[in-house]
Amino acid sequence: MKKIGVAVIGCGTIANSAHIPAYMKNPEVEIAYFCDIRPERAEEAVRRYGTGEAVRDYRDILNSDRVDAVSVCTPNNVHSQIAIDFLRAGKDVLCEKPAARTYQEAFEMQRACHETGRILMIGVCNRFNTSVNRIKDLIDKGELGEVYHVYISFRAHRSIPGLGGDFTTRAVSGGGALIDWGVHFLDIVMYCCGDPRPVTVSGQVFSKLGKDIAGYTYTDMWAGPPVLNGTYDVEDSVTALIRTEGPTITLHGAWAQNIGKKEMFIDFMGDKAGIRLDYGAGFTMYTAKDGALLEITPKFTMANMYENEINTFIECIKTRKNNIAGIDNAVITSQIMQAIYDSSDKGRELVL
Amino acid sequence: MKKIGVAVIGCGTIANSAHIPAYMKNPEVEIAYFCDIRPERAEEAVRRYGTGEAVRDYRDILNSDRVDAVSVCTPNNVHSQIAIDFLRAGKDVLCEKPAARTYQEAFEMQRACHETGRILMIGVCNRFNTSVNRIKDLIDKGELGEVYHVYISFRAHRSIPGLGGDFTTRAVSGGGALIDWGVHFLDIVMYCCGDPRPVTVSGQVFSKLGKDIAGYTYTDMWAGPPVLNGTYDVEDSVTALIRTEGPTITLHGAWAQNIGKKEMFIDFMGDKAGIRLDYGAGFTMYTAKDGALLEITPKFTMANMYENEINTFIECIKTRKNNIAGIDNAVITSQIMQAIYDSSDKGRELVL
Amino acid sequence: MKKIGVAVIGCGTIANSAHIPAYMKNPEVEIAYFCDIRPERAEEAVRRYGTGEAVRDYRDILNSDRVDAVSVCTPNNVHSQIAIDFLRAGKDVLCEKPAARTYQEAFEMQRACHETGRILMIGVCNRFNTSVNRIKDLIDKGELGEVYHVYISFRAHRSIPGLGGDFTTRAVSGGGALIDWGVHFLDIVMYCCGDPRPVTVSGQVFSKLGKDIAGYTYTDMWAGPPVLNGTYDVEDSVTALIRTEGPTITLHGAWAQNIGKKEMFIDFMGDKAGIRLDYGAGFTMYTAKDGALLEITPKFTMANMYENEINTFIECIKTRKNNIAGIDNAVITSQIMQAIYDSSDKGRELVL
Amino acid sequence: MKKIGVAVIGCGTIANSAHIPAYMKNPEVEIAYFCDIRPERAEEAVRRYGTGEAVRDYRDILNSDRVDAVSVCTPNNVHSQIAIDFLRAGKDVLCEKPAARTYQEAFEMQRACHETGRILMIGVCNRFNTSVNRIKDLIDKGELGEVYHVYISFRAHRSIPGLGGDFTTRAVSGGGALIDWGVHFLDIVMYCCGDPRPVTVSGQVFSKLGKDIAGYTYTDMWAGPPVLNGTYDVEDSVTALIRTEGPTITLHGAWAQNIGKKEMFIDFMGDKAGIRLDYGAGFTMYTAKDGALLEITPKFTMANMYENEINTFIECIKTRKNNIAGIDNAVITSQIMQAIYDSSDKGRELVL
Repeated sequence: MKKIGVAVIGCGTIANSAHIPAYMKNPEVEIAYFCDIRPERAEEAVRRYGTGEAVRDYRDILNSDRVDAVSVCTPNNVHSQIAIDFLRAGKDVLCEKPAARTYQEAFEMQRACHETGRILMIGVCNRFNTSVNRIKDLIDKGELGEVYHVYISFRAHRSIPGLGGDFTTRAVSGGGALIDWGVHFLDIVMYCCGDPRPVTVSGQVFSKLGKDIAGYTYTDMWAGPPVLNGTYDVEDSVTALIRTEGPTITLHGAWAQNIGKKEMFIDFMGDKAGIRLDYGAGFTMYTAKDGALLEITPKFTMANMYENEINTFIECIKTRKNNIAGIDNAVITSQIMQAIYDSSDKGRELVL
Repeated sequence: MKKIGVAVIGCGTIANSAHIPAYMKNPEVEIAYFCDIRPERAEEAVRRYGTGEAVRDYRDILNSDRVDAVSVCTPNNVHSQIAIDFLRAGKDVLCEKPAARTYQEAFEMQRACHETGRILMIGVCNRFNTSVNRIKDLIDKGELGEVYHVYISFRAHRSIPGLGGDFTTRAVSGGGALIDWGVHFLDIVMYCCGDPRPVTVSGQVFSKLGKDIAGYTYTDMWAGPPVLNGTYDVEDSVTALIRTEGPTITLHGAWAQNIGKKEMFIDFMGDKAGIRLDYGAGFTMYTAKDGALLEITPKFTMANMYENEINTFIECIKTRKNNIAGIDNAVITSQIMQAIYDSSDKGRELVL
Repeated sequence: MKKIGVAVIGCGTIANSAHIPAYMKNPEVEIAYFCDIRPERAEEAVRRYGTGEAVRDYRDILNSDRVDAVSVCTPNNVHSQIAIDFLRAGKDVLCEKPAARTYQEAFEMQRACHETGRILMIGVCNRFNTSVNRIKDLIDKGELGEVYHVYISFRAHRSIPGLGGDFTTRAVSGGGALIDWGVHFLDIVMYCCGDPRPVTVSGQVFSKLGKDIAGYTYTDMWAGPPVLNGTYDVEDSVTALIRTEGPTITLHGAWAQNIGKKEMFIDFMGDKAGIRLDYGAGFTMYTAKDGALLEITPKFTMANMYENEINTFIECIKTRKNNIAGIDNAVITSQIMQAIYDSSDKGRELVL
Repeated sequence: MKKIGVAVIGCGTIANSAHIPAYMKNPEVEIAYFCDIRPERAEEAVRRYGTGEAVRDYRDILNSDRVDAVSVCTPNNVHSQIAIDFLRAGKDVLCEKPAARTYQEAFEMQRACHETGRILMIGVCNRFNTSVNRIKDLIDKGELGEVYHVYISFRAHRSIPGLGGDFTTRAVSGGGALIDWGVHFLDIVMYCCGDPRPVTVSGQVFSKLGKDIAGYTYTDMWAGPPVLNGTYDVEDSVTALIRTEGPTITLHGAWAQNIGKKEMFIDFMGDKAGIRLDYGAGFTMYTAKDGALLEITPKFTMANMYENEINTFIECIKTRKNNIAGIDNAVITSQIMQAIYDSSDKGRELVL
């Protein structure tokens, strides 16, 4: 049988650490192209993985019949354009998170998806995480009763990425801690709680610790060293209160805050039981049984969520069925994040 | 010199654990009356402390010339009436927190205070706590820089007091976890941040775990065992986002939630440093110095905050000067709490 | 029916906080005497509890026919003499922990107990603690498999009691952190593991932080303020490795150490499951079931262990049966503690 | 100037993750040979690093004049033989930790080192760790006063490596959790405390959780999946009490124990201050200043300890001077570990 031809657009960290290794493991896939505007990165990928061709401009392969599907692994500012171009060229698309910089961009991606009938999946990889799916099952089975409040914490002490570079330049990234990290946490909540429609959003973002690029004290930095004459016009922390048709969601996150240890977790508060998910790890359930209170922490093998994600994408391509990480779900998270930014600008709550 | 004559109105837990012992230690005070609608409680106090007379109805001593000042230690529903009656009778008043059940009641107390020129102090005892005052000093000295966000956590696993009784009956208490515990936390923030005026309030309260009185699982209960045929019409948890003229304040509190251990703390996030206060205990400061990040946890002897409070009250009576726990400050917290309840009822943010 | 007449010998903290209230609640008991070498303490007890007579010298009531049983609540240095005198006078005895200052003293108490046939119970109150008994049940049922190693931690940052006074004077107390706190922890392990016979003991005690009484930095101190010209010749910390016929036991304890938070727990390591007991609180079990690893933390109401203890003592008096807190068990712990002190002096392990 | 020619003996995990990358970064080094008894591993290294030749038998290059120095990265059972052979052939040697399986083997390595005058360094990489060196400086400067007790904890819940394989086969590894992990912790203590001579050692090792290879429950496993018909004759946990001419050292470690989270730390208890080192991370100091107690947690950039180690080795080769990680230090740790195993076998303490 003919293999599914894939092009990887953008050959940076997420492509090399997640997408490409997972494609390489899937026997039904053949990577046809590595594309990057920095040609040496595409060429390096060809060498390293021993497959595919290097291209610089994705438009050169829009109509290639060796391409059935693409992974969009570029900076956020070109997600929308590239994804839409491939959809309209008849290709299936897996686009990294966040879907786009703004709700408007995400909305246009959704429209292109509906109009073309192609698959548009967003790389909200936690929907393929073992812990997250166990929690979703427990909620679906009613073990928590009514989940009436979810509290999201994604607070770090010093984790601004590449201060002054793409991550901290709004025109490229669309935002800071919220759009970069918050998107994952919000998406987990949306997924576990049945993607409830948001009703009101009040949020506030803060751009404080990164503003003085030269004066920012840290011990290490991912995504490269500070660019001293770079741009910092995004938030380093955020808080919000979101009423939905399901639970009320409150969130508090920071790339950088003058606090102690990282606090990365989600608390699902139900009237029968509650769960704390340690982000990226396991969870504990707090419940009552026969008049006794119990804490239960199961431990289990975590599957590779990136492989699950890529395999699901490939399966969808074959079956033409939507999946749990489609744009129709992702666009809701996009709308909420947009509302947080807008609410913060206005200094008051938005009713959606 | 003549001693200051004090009447203690309401002889329950807070009177016996805080007000009375502190008055007994102050050599300038003489307790003239113990008043309680349950006569045996007033009589028991007379016996135990070897001073004063027992009375049942506070109106009998409104005009007693043996009374210069009163402590109001009753349930919340009569705070306002009793305090106002004594103010108008020309007495000075220390009223337990919360000032009242509603903002309207608190506002009327403030008016009576202004009209009579008497002292009306509210028992927001944390303003006399050693840790809190150290934090206020650090903020005032600029050690934290701009405090732009404060996060309040007062979450417990199982601590609904006297389920079905006065604490959980709105007509008596005015509310649940927010008005009972939250008032302390909010007041600490107000005090440390210079009592900033609130601008917007969005909040949501939840009445979930206590609703099924017979089915509530717990290991111990303060303020008495459950009243199975009692009332539970208050919140067991609450969350809110409050914009002020100073920092944005977010709070998350619960008498009962399906969580793990208690999480009782306040995070003051400044752009130069941050502080976590462990409620009722010490604090840690997170700062940077000479390019290095530092966590510093001082340890120190905690003074008795109730004695500080009572001694401050007595000092005010003598000097006729206002103090840091006056009704003018307390009424702001009252306004915020009212707005949280109102916002929750309406399902949207209030602009104050 | 005639009540059991009890004399309380020593009317200090443990008498007032534990023994006397529990006797007062037991309808079969009548306290006949309160005895203390400081007469005002005995007289105060008579007043407070409204029963009994005050005496100064316990020898005056050795042969009183109003005394069936006594609680020995004195400093450690007179435990042995008083207990033996009452046993030989035909009375039943509940003696506070530790049984005595030395193994030799404890051994003589045991002999007197056997020779007289009276009851000699030691106040190892944790044998009446709800958590401890749940753990013992789990071990007895085989839920932990073979318990091969127990690690005891009773480490505090600053908790030397009454520095310079009775607690820190070896001639009175017999020792420091080990004999004061360690006795409880060792006793819990002995109880839960079936009182296994010790085989080898290697231990080291340290007398460091309390030596410079004036220079000792602390935030609060139980059992009174420092006596600047007092005595400090006991250990503030201790470590030991004990091989028994059952599990190997290692312990590490300190009244004072330059560490962070208190670490007060016991880890029972079994080959099927393990348990961590939080001293004075609950516990968590770590186990595996059907190929999955599980942590389980039950929560439950804690009974009052002092009432259980006193009621058990009274029951034994009536039934003439030994109980789980008899001298025959306590003497083993006494032997182990003696061996730790002796091993530390010699700088090498003892084979028992 | 001529580069220093290096041969890497054993091309497994530690070679690829630590030694080779650090050699590649050092401009004074040229890797001449990659040696592995599995030829494909040596060949793969030649390909990946673009330098050197692959050899199978280290004896073929003993006398090569392209080899000035070697890294021994093999399983423990051949450390001693290979290191001695290269020393006697006139080469300088960096041998991975532990020096050898037994004290006898380590002692022979030391003798060969002294007889040949060559450099024999052991890969106790933590001597090149930033946190560890900061702690050593603080101790050397007297900030902790007398360090009288050190408590080592290296306890994991489920981390037996390659159950049934080389790691768990005594003939290959020499032991389990102690020799594999404990060696690092003991070495840190030795280094920070001035390599004090041990005086007595009492220890007990336990082989419990790994014995039933098929029944061992875990969530993931490093160093490969279980070998169901393999060997498990090493300890999964260990405890010991070691008296030295300096501090008393107690240790408690486990690859696997039925406990909660990992507890990997070292507590240095001094009479002026104490330090807790979080293994592989930072540390907190607990001290007193001007009558106040303080916790201080510095944060700083961690240098790459493997590069420090390799660069130190190269520097020693050039200067012919010994360094802080020489066999004369490592042999003391080896002696202690041997004594723990021997003490455990005999069931009693050894006097060294």
